[in-house]
Amino acid sequence: MAQRIGQRTLRFDRPPGLLGYAAVVGKKESHGPLHGTFDVVGPDSHFGQKSWELAESQMQKTALQTALQKAGYTLADLQMILAGDLLNQCIGSAFASVQSNVPYLGLYGACSTMAEGLVTGACMVDGGCADLLAAAASSHFCSAERQYRFPLAYGGQRPPTAQWTATAAGAVILGQTKSPLHITHAVIGQMVDMGVKDANNMGAAMAPAAYHTLSMLLDDLHAHPADFDCIVTGDLADVGASLLVRLFEQDGVDITPVYSDCGSMLYGDDQDTHAGGSGCGCSAAVLCGKLLRDMQDGTIHRLIFAGTGALMSPTSIQQGQSIAGICHAVVIERRD
Amino acid sequence: MAQRIGQRTLRFDRPPGLLGYAAVVGKKESHGPLHGTFDVVGPDSHFGQKSWELAESQMQKTALQTALQKAGYTLADLQMILAGDLLNQCIGSAFASVQSNVPYLGLYGACSTMAEGLVTGACMVDGGCADLLAAAASSHFCSAERQYRFPLAYGGQRPPTAQWTATAAGAVILGQTKSPLHITHAVIGQMVDMGVKDANNMGAAMAPAAYHTLSMLLDDLHAHPADFDCIVTGDLADVGASLLVRLFEQDGVDITPVYSDCGSMLYGDDQDTHAGGSGCGCSAAVLCGKLLRDMQDGTIHRLIFAGTGALMSPTSIQQGQSIAGICHAVVIERRD
Repeated sequence: MAQRIGQRTLRFDRPPGLLGYAAVVGKKESHGPLHGTFDVVGPDSHFGQKSWELAESQMQKTALQTALQKAGYTLADLQMILAGDLLNQCIGSAFASVQSNVPYLGLYGACSTMAEGLVTGACMVDGGCADLLAAAASSHFCSAERQYRFPLAYGGQRPPTAQWTATAAGAVILGQTKSPLHITHAVIGQMVDMGVKDANNMGAAMAPAAYHTLSMLLDDLHAHPADFDCIVTGDLADVGASLLVRLFEQDGVDITPVYSDCGSMLYGDDQDTHAGGSGCGCSAAVLCGKLLRDMQDGTIHRLIFAGTGALMSPTSIQQGQSIAGICHAVVIERRD
Repeated sequence: MAQRIGQRTLRFDRPPGLLGYAAVVGKKESHGPLHGTFDVVGPDSHFGQKSWELAESQMQKTALQTALQKAGYTLADLQMILAGDLLNQCIGSAFASVQSNVPYLGLYGACSTMAEGLVTGACMVDGGCADLLAAAASSHFCSAERQYRFPLAYGGQRPPTAQWTATAAGAVILGQTKSPLHITHAVIGQMVDMGVKDANNMGAAMAPAAYHTLSMLLDDLHAHPADFDCIVTGDLADVGASLLVRLFEQDGVDITPVYSDCGSMLYGDDQDTHAGGSGCGCSAAVLCGKLLRDMQDGTIHRLIFAGTGALMSPTSIQQGQSIAGICHAVVIERRD
């Protein structure tokens, strides 16, 4: 049973274990600062498929299979897959698992989807609804670019606040089996709309939601940022991350000693991604690559993973609607 | 705690109560056979909004508020909203709850979304993750038609197997409080892909998934169709419903005495909807209108509500991919 503590935080009586995890990325992502932390790097943008959409599915499928393999399980052991992506009607995730014969819950949380899957999955495992499940998310620069913005061949110019959709996928296997890494707490975020209407500045649209969820979690736990080895958002990128730091500063709280953002971590300054990375796959691959490896080897003991999403569509932007942000968070701890 | 029984069925130790429910529909839907079973009927297709997309959000918002009111609660009492729709990036649901200040989990299950919300919500309530939550879904003929098919003004012709996207929304309030109506069991469905590629014949694409989930549920419960007052799918419509009946016939099982489909129920034969209704709002509004009213007044005591979805997008169809079906089911019982 989960216990509700404080305003919004769920504490799990039987903290679900992270039994396996894997990150799959494209070439560009593998050439960034996190080089060497990914399980699989695609040879090109097609991952052996005939379309970028199928390439995205292939990445997510590979992440799921690799995570399962690392955990010592097969698809037949899984009781549930929770997955989502940015493609219309979430076809990236559907086609990744269509042949799996595993019960499937489709999620949509924009770039917060990996965190949404972990939160929901942890609730399912803790509540006895599954002994073993997978949470997965993906994005692909090429499939996202042509759906949200312009045909790639057009070579559209991007402002400095814009983020670069990562070609990446991540998957985590959660279960009731004991494991050094486990999810102790979760917060399901609410939408926060501060009136941002610039689809090229998602960081600004999402930062207030990240602040809302993280400050509530810290309050509920009576904790300070320094109680964690790492607080990571995904993906505010450089612009949104600076805003989040300033929002906490207004409360007299300095998060900078432990704070990072997956969108800022994934690419180097010389990789021309402007404000940094985004896309469901960005935070998924940084979590399932660098961060969980750091937890596994004991570099990080206590992590807040806060996935952030911008809830909009090309249609809502064209109709003049503002962009609401949302942020779901999990606390992951290492038990030695 | 939920118990897993048989292959896939979850049995809830503390069956979540259905504390309130509401259905909102457009004019066409209100003129069909289910006339008089809906809580709110829109005056026109705009529901007071300037776009059809916002009209859809307004419908879902109204359904949510009406369901809350009927349950004797307000938004401030809700600990979670689980919602989804057919619009790209699920903006119908996002804009319905953006100002709610309630933790929000976005779902995507195509037309199975209402069932997905009930299954996931029941797991959350049973597992102690929420005392009170809402599950909601919506669709709008005009917003769906221009996104999936043609501009309305084009007047595209539709084959006899095509379904008509309902302008409708439904919301259910689930909670730990005792209630005459409650969810006793749930099955999370897997995707089933039988190779159907005709986007104008979703019923055929979804029927095998409905058969898969329903036969597993009946097996797991050691039950026969006659053990239920009503088994309802949503939305296979006429073509898919006939296929489902035939799939069960091959097992020597006759479901016809208790079987209905929300897509077949919503519109009359004279309403020119071809095979019948579809869209997340169709099964949501039929459940939250006719079916739960029938349970409330004791006409139905034991119901299987099996939401069916077709996991595809215009892009996946154009790329020649087949359409996978999925079906999530809940058992709703009335305790006198």
